[in-house]
Amino acid sequence: MLLTKKQESLIKSLYTRHGRKKNNLCICEGKRCVADLLMSKPELVKFTVIAELNQNSSPDNVINPFIVSDRKFSELSATVASQGILAVVERPELISADIEPVDPFILVLDRLADPGNFGSILRTARAIGLTEVWYTTGSVDPFNDKVIRAAMASQFVVGMRCFANLKELSCELRRFGYDKIFRTDPHQGESCFASEELFSHSAIIIGNEADGVASLDGSVDILIPMSGSAESLNAAQAATVILFEYIRRRSPGL
Amino acid sequence: MLLTKKQESLIKSLYTRHGRKKNNLCICEGKRCVADLLMSKPELVKFTVIAELNQNSSPDNVINPFIVSDRKFSELSATVASQGILAVVERPELISADIEPVDPFILVLDRLADPGNFGSILRTARAIGLTEVWYTTGSVDPFNDKVIRAAMASQFVVGMRCFANLKELSCELRRFGYDKIFRTDPHQGESCFASEELFSHSAIIIGNEADGVASLDGSVDILIPMSGSAESLNAAQAATVILFEYIRRRSPGL
Repeated sequence: MLLTKKQESLIKSLYTRHGRKKNNLCICEGKRCVADLLMSKPELVKFTVIAELNQNSSPDNVINPFIVSDRKFSELSATVASQGILAVVERPELISADIEPVDPFILVLDRLADPGNFGSILRTARAIGLTEVWYTTGSVDPFNDKVIRAAMASQFVVGMRCFANLKELSCELRRFGYDKIFRTDPHQGESCFASEELFSHSAIIIGNEADGVASLDGSVDILIPMSGSAESLNAAQAATVILFEYIRRRSPGL
Repeated sequence: MLLTKKQESLIKSLYTRHGRKKNNLCICEGKRCVADLLMSKPELVKFTVIAELNQNSSPDNVINPFIVSDRKFSELSATVASQGILAVVERPELISADIEPVDPFILVLDRLADPGNFGSILRTARAIGLTEVWYTTGSVDPFNDKVIRAAMASQFVVGMRCFANLKELSCELRRFGYDKIFRTDPHQGESCFASEELFSHSAIIIGNEADGVASLDGSVDILIPMSGSAESLNAAQAATVILFEYIRRRSPGL
């Protein structure tokens, strides 16, 4: 099938926050990312665009494929070394406020700005089996194409809730009985390896790359111990240390 | 001082691998990154370029500053939302083969291709106190500007050794007595949380984002346990889990 001019403009618009909001769609690009999405949530895929040279190596179960010239693909793609496949995907809704969370603890991202960080945290949250992640306004749009690539399309599997700020978010946490709230801090607090209540109906907040977590009444600081000279960890690495401390504690025979 | 045309061309050439090699220099961009470098290795900084609008917020100890118009700075910068400061920096030499490593274990990156991954692993290695990281040819250039930004300039503090492939690298590991070699694998091996010899004069290899670690005779597979539906972790997250397992085991009171 031929891609219409209207579809081309639609794709280009989805690289902007405004375009994604208006059309309620987003872009998932790259072989593994699209293949993962076709496996986990095929019903969300509206159509797929494939570069001519790549059409033989595209997944079998691809949905509504449009083949375009390699030159046209480069024009529609956001990556420099494109893998010749992208999908236009329905943006899933946020989790409705009346649904009770089932996860043992809630991972919270407070104004996380970097697309790579937000994405790799979603991918890691999925890898440890969390079903949702909460975030505050001021974070990068989770359906930004870079976030989707970094997350390997995990935002279509892991649900999300968004709040104006930590105060509103923490009211909601408490309403659902997640009443121990931990702020990660690079300089102070109890060690994440020692804290006994870290994962028992709690919430753990990862903060903005430059400013950290906003202050929050009634929260407890948690520290990731380090031994080197670096001032602090990258936000996604901090989240990873904490998420895998959960897995470690649950591992059999330890 | 005025930036000469020659200096401008020099800066532009440092965004290519060839230009960095020819001039033995590289680019460190961004406020925190330059500030960190000025603190840790000021002797490596050749000169600094600052955008007019940012000159009042630049670090006090800046070296050989050239002030340029904001428009000129955008032209010289590789970032979209630049922070108005970059430094031209001498590229440190690789660690000489006759120097014996002092670290308890060696972290190895095998053909790690993504600049963000390579950089955040260097930053994390530094945070846990490693003094060097080894890598194989086929990896991204550690002095690529994106790697430097992701590493927060840690490549000027953490030393590096580079080898043609894992076979050559493992000979060198054994020569120094690092004789237990672990390959991280997403699907098989002993749990990194259970393996007792993981950090005792060993080496731990993190592999290429798409292909994993190359096969290597005499190595042992190590697995990061997961519980969710994701196929595997991002390489930088895998490295982080393992590096902080080392810190956790050394933490007092555990």
